[in-house]
Formats: sequence, structure tokens, C-alpha cells
Amino acid sequence: VSQAVARPNPASDGDSGKVFVDYTIFKGKGALNMSPIPPKFSQLQSGCMKVDRKGAMMLNFFPAVGPKKYDWQKKQGFALSVTEMGSLISLGPSESAEFFHDPSMQSSNAGQVRKKLSVQPLGNGGGFSFSLNVNNSVSKTSDQIYVPVSKAEFEVMRSSFNYILPRIMGWDRLFNPQLPASVNMN
Amino acid sequence: VSQAVARPNPASDGDSGKVFVDYTIFKGKGALNMSPIPPKFSQLQSGCMKVDRKGAMMLNFFPAVGPKKYDWQKKQGFALSVTEMGSLISLGPSESAEFFHDPSMQSSNAGQVRKKLSVQPLGNGGGFSFSLNVNNSVSKTSDQIYVPVSKAEFEVMRSSFNYILPRIMGWDRLFNPQLPASVNMN
Amino acid sequence: VSQAVARPNPASDGDSGKVFVDYTIFKGKGALNMSPIPPKFSQLQSGCMKVDRKGAMMLNFFPAVGPKKYDWQKKQGFALSVTEMGSLISLGPSESAEFFHDPSMQSSNAGQVRKKLSVQPLGNGGGFSFSLNVNNSVSKTSDQIYVPVSKAEFEVMRSSFNYILPRIMGWDRLFNPQLPASVNMN
Amino acid sequence: VSQAVARPNPASDGDSGKVFVDYTIFKGKGALNMSPIPPKFSQLQSGCMKVDRKGAMMLNFFPAVGPKKYDWQKKQGFALSVTEMGSLISLGPSESAEFFHDPSMQSSNAGQVRKKLSVQPLGNGGGFSFSLNVNNSVSKTSDQIYVPVSKAEFEVMRSSFNYILPRIMGWDRLFNPQLPASVNMN
Repeated sequence: VSQAVARPNPASDGDSGKVFVDYTIFKGKGALNMSPIPPKFSQLQSGCMKVDRKGAMMLNFFPAVGPKKYDWQKKQGFALSVTEMGSLISLGPSESAEFFHDPSMQSSNAGQVRKKLSVQPLGNGGGFSFSLNVNNSVSKTSDQIYVPVSKAEFEVMRSSFNYILPRIMGWDRLFNPQLPASVNMN
Repeated sequence: VSQAVARPNPASDGDSGKVFVDYTIFKGKGALNMSPIPPKFSQLQSGCMKVDRKGAMMLNFFPAVGPKKYDWQKKQGFALSVTEMGSLISLGPSESAEFFHDPSMQSSNAGQVRKKLSVQPLGNGGGFSFSLNVNNSVSKTSDQIYVPVSKAEFEVMRSSFNYILPRIMGWDRLFNPQLPASVNMN
Repeated sequence: VSQAVARPNPASDGDSGKVFVDYTIFKGKGALNMSPIPPKFSQLQSGCMKVDRKGAMMLNFFPAVGPKKYDWQKKQGFALSVTEMGSLISLGPSESAEFFHDPSMQSSNAGQVRKKLSVQPLGNGGGFSFSLNVNNSVSKTSDQIYVPVSKAEFEVMRSSFNYILPRIMGWDRLFNPQLPASVNMN
Repeated sequence: VSQAVARPNPASDGDSGKVFVDYTIFKGKGALNMSPIPPKFSQLQSGCMKVDRKGAMMLNFFPAVGPKKYDWQKKQGFALSVTEMGSLISLGPSESAEFFHDPSMQSSNAGQVRKKLSVQPLGNGGGFSFSLNVNNSVSKTSDQIYVPVSKAEFEVMRSSFNYILPRIMGWDRLFNPQLPASVNMN
């Protein structure tokens, strides 16, 4: 059920020198792509390095426009924090989770766009539905993309989240002290 | 019950410079060897790297031809995808799984060979039977190799699958950005 | 609920060349910051390396002094050992744990300061309360800082503890034999 | 309960250039030390590398000779295979396991020394007793060393075994293709 379908090259939008990795779930009404974002470090005058910005697990949702065809332009993103990843990793088979994001939080546009990710158990003994709602109070639009995630696919998420979680916090740098790829010198 | 038995050198078939690692389970009617296949990367003109072909977990089955003797020539392979690995990792003690592969899928030979891997719980409180069926409609042959996997051996699979899963997707490259061994320059 | 709040730069206290990583939970009555401490190695005359001092998981508690304001000066630390980390990783949802530390153990000041970390299940189906008590029999003071940790936040602890545990014991060096950052030559 | 007690330097017996890491549990009647043994690789003429000898998890048992004093000379070792590690990782709280080793298996001395490691659940809701029996039919001696392992200590074993298991099989080399420390050229 997870099969390769042509989509725009993720590397074409200017971020040269990077490594792009992901995992995509293709379903009838939509596709769900997940891709880790590494943390950014900064080096202090003392020579000490610290995490400037924690990484995240980017979930991108795409609506289906036909059998095995998706509208890659209409993507809606939702960047899971470390704690939200912890919530999904620990989700029991009959539990659910909801996360709310405002992409303009703490700016003058706060409240214009509201995103809600809802993760609900699928009835048939395994897996979860992932629904992303995006409400834009300026353009008066409301989008919803729905992707059912099987028990096996959710286990891929759980296993890879466990791998990614300490690395998104930059903890691997403590044991591999060479300079990481993305460092800002202060 | 898992003991070293002489078998043909895996490195002798032309893939120089590679590292070969595996785990083999030897049983009365057959042997099951598992060996991870790393992903292939390609480097774009932007300098950005992306996964060209995801890796897999190759399962190779060998029929027994006598006590502790196996016919290494008659091997039948089944390459588990990331999602199929997720299915096995999350398998409850009384659950089962079936996977179907067509090695010629999307070619003119599609449908000639059908492979079915069936994983069923062993009755005695632990472990699973792994049965691989290969039906060839051209040669009119049908092979089945059966290997019972104990609870301890299945845990080795689960633990090593958890290790391999993010690496088969290439996610480790995000945190170790040096050029991997197998890169195609575009 | 876990959000960035200004706090003193961890790198400013003289430890140049280091990498500082952490995870902080901000709650109404206090904040809980966790940060791994890598092990120290020493090199013997034989050229062999061994762990001189095991690492730990430092938990730092800070009292709240107002909405989203914490007194970073009044921090109380508690360094979890590898075995104490194992205790928390294996904690069932209705189980509790208590750890007692004496920062001056085996010195002439033993017994003057007593620290107790108490981890109790939160009633509402998930998460644990973390309470740190520090009793100082010389200054006749007693401090308590309380931070409720949600199920999702505890899963971040569990997942990152599983990552850190073998590395705090130095076991990663066995497979990455280059000289680690902090080595004492004997 | 796990505390540092002086013991002979593990690095003094000739293995220069190595890294020595371990985890030790000190109890009233004995101590249990565990220490991973990395695999040995060999390089074929093709340039391909393969695992020559899988690693193991060495368990060393020491009898107590007084309060916090152990006889480091009377150590008895038991090298857990990958599958035996899988058995312990998957051990349910009320399950038990027994492993039998003959250090001279497949030599003319086979059967002279028999070692049995017995892992039994401790009654009080957690942890396991580890008992090592060594019977020597030549010297007509029989030794038994018993170490109770708490639930927290067993979780340290489980967590570190999960880390070590794929590395003992050499699977990490697939993703870090630089020459490992111990390679035999053929």
C-alpha cells in the first residue's frame, strides 16, 4: 500500500548540500509524508556549542486528486515537536491525541491560521487515522486532509521517532563532537 | 539451536568493497538468513543528496537436505520493505501476517512468479513459523520452505529491525553528513 | 506546555569546547531540565582506554516565581545514575520510585544535605509527578520543587534515556574507537 | 546498591589499544559484571569485509568473601550469544530462562566442564535471580554464584542489550564503512 509515486523533487527548492530523507504513506484520499528536520547549533565565543533551535518531525499532507495521483502543490505541513512525538510514541491502541498549532504564534498574525492534527484509533484492531484541519480566518478557507495509517505504518513512525527524538534534540552531538553541518558562529 | 554451518562465501559474487553482515537461524527443515540492504543515494546538481532507492531487509530461505546440511543453491529470497518490517516489529504474540511479492512487478513478466511469506504464531507460547511459498506459473513449480522462529530469535529480529529501520530509510545520513559508500552522481 | 523561556546561558560557566544539549519542561510551580553528562575516560600505559567515571543524567529543578518565570539561581540538581535511569524507564503507569542522594557521601560532610527525588503516578491516566526535596541540616533549610510530567513528556524521557544509557556507560566507544573528547592520560 | 568497589584493572592482561566498558552489579553473595565483546571482521581478497566471529555479551560472576568484598580471582564467565540476549530482552516478568554452555564444545575436552545460567523471576514484583553453576567433572568441583538483579538493573541490561545486539552482529559497519579496529587480512 505504500508505493513510489512521482512527486516534485524535494531538493529543488534551494537548500543545496543537504540530505533529504523521508517516509511516505499513500492512501486513497491523501498522502502523508514525514521527514525529520535536524536541530540548528550555534557556537559561542567560549567555543562551547549549544542547540539554537530544536529540530522537529515535519508531517506533510497532500490531497488525492485521483487514483494514485496527489496534488503536491496543495500540501499542508505540521511540524511535530519532541513532546508531540513522545505523545504519539506512547499512544495506546485505543487512545487518541490532538495537537493545535498556530504557524504565526507570537507574531501580529497570530490566530489567522489554525491547524489541528487529530489522531484517532481505527476501529479494526490497529492503526490510527491522521486528520489535518487547517482553518484560515482571512481567506475564509478550511481544508481537511485525511490519511488512515495502518498498524504496520504506525510502527514505522514509532520506531523511527524513537531513533529521531534524541537526535532532534541534538543529543547525538555530545558523543560525536565534530562540528555539525549547520552551525551559526556568534 | 543457531549454530555455525559452512555455507558459500556471500562476498564471492562480485560486490567488492562491501560489508556483509547477517543473522542465520538453522532449523530441521530449513535455514533462514537475514541480511540488511542499505539504501542507495544520489547527489543532485544542487549538491543535495536524496535516497534513490530505499534499502530492505533481505530474508533468504534454504531447504534442509539432511541433519545440519542445507542446499545453499536452492535459496529463495524475500526482501522486506520498511512497512513490512514495521508489521513484524508490532506483531502481537497471537497475531499473524502475510506478505505477497511479485519479483517482476511492473514488468512484462508480472504474475509469473508469486511469493507469499506467511508468519504464524507457534502454539507453545512464543515464537512464529516463517513459511515462504514460491509459485512459478512458467516452470509449473511450487516451493515451500518452513523455518520455526523461537521467541528469542524473533526478539533478535525485532531488536535488529528497530536498529535497521531508520537506516534503511537513510535517516542516519541526516546526522552523519559525510558521503555514503554508494552514491550515484547525476 | 513545554515552551522556550529565557534562562542563563549554560555555556557561560567556563566549560569551553563542550556541547550543551538538554530538554526542559516548564510548568506552573517549577521547571525540570534534563541534560546528559558523558562519561570520562582514561588511557592506561598499555594504550587501553577505560571509563574513569560513568556519566549521568542531570536533572535540574527550578522554582517558579510567577507566570512563565523561574528563578534560575535557585536550581537544585539530582544526577541520575544508570541504574536509576533503568528504574524510570521500566516504571509501570501506576508504579512509583524514590531515590535518595547525599552529595557529600563518603566525605566528612556526609549527612549534612539529603536529597530525595520522588516520582509518583498522576491520577488522570498518565504521567508522573517529580518532586525534589532537599534538606540541609546545617542551614536548617528545606526546599521542595514539584513538576508534573505528562505522559508525553515522560515518554520523551524514556526514549532519550534508552538512547543515553549505553552511551553514559561509554559503550559507544567500543564501536567508535577514536579518542573521545575528554580523556585523562595516566 | 550498585556501587564502585576496587577490583583488578581489566586492561592489565595484555590487550593494549582496546576500549574496556562494563556494568557491574554488587550484591551480598556475589557480583555480576557485564561487558560487550565486539565482533571480529576479516577482509577478503575481493576487498569485501565479513564478520569472522560474532561478538557476545560476557557475563562475569564473582563470589563475595565479605561485606562489599569480592574474590576477583574466582571469576566464572558466561558469554551470551545474540540469541540468548534476545531471550533475556523478551523475558516476561514471571518467565524464566536457562542456558547451557560447554566451553570445550567440539574439542576433545567436550563435556568436562558444564556451565548452566539460570534466570528466575524474583517473587517480589520485579527483577530476576541470576545463578551460574559450573560443574567440572575432572577436578570434581562444583561452583555456584548467585546474584539477584533488581527490576531497574534488569532494565539496564535490556536497554543496553538492545543497543549492543546489532553491533555485536557487526551491522553498524554497514552504515559506517571505515575499517573497524579488529580486522584480519586474508
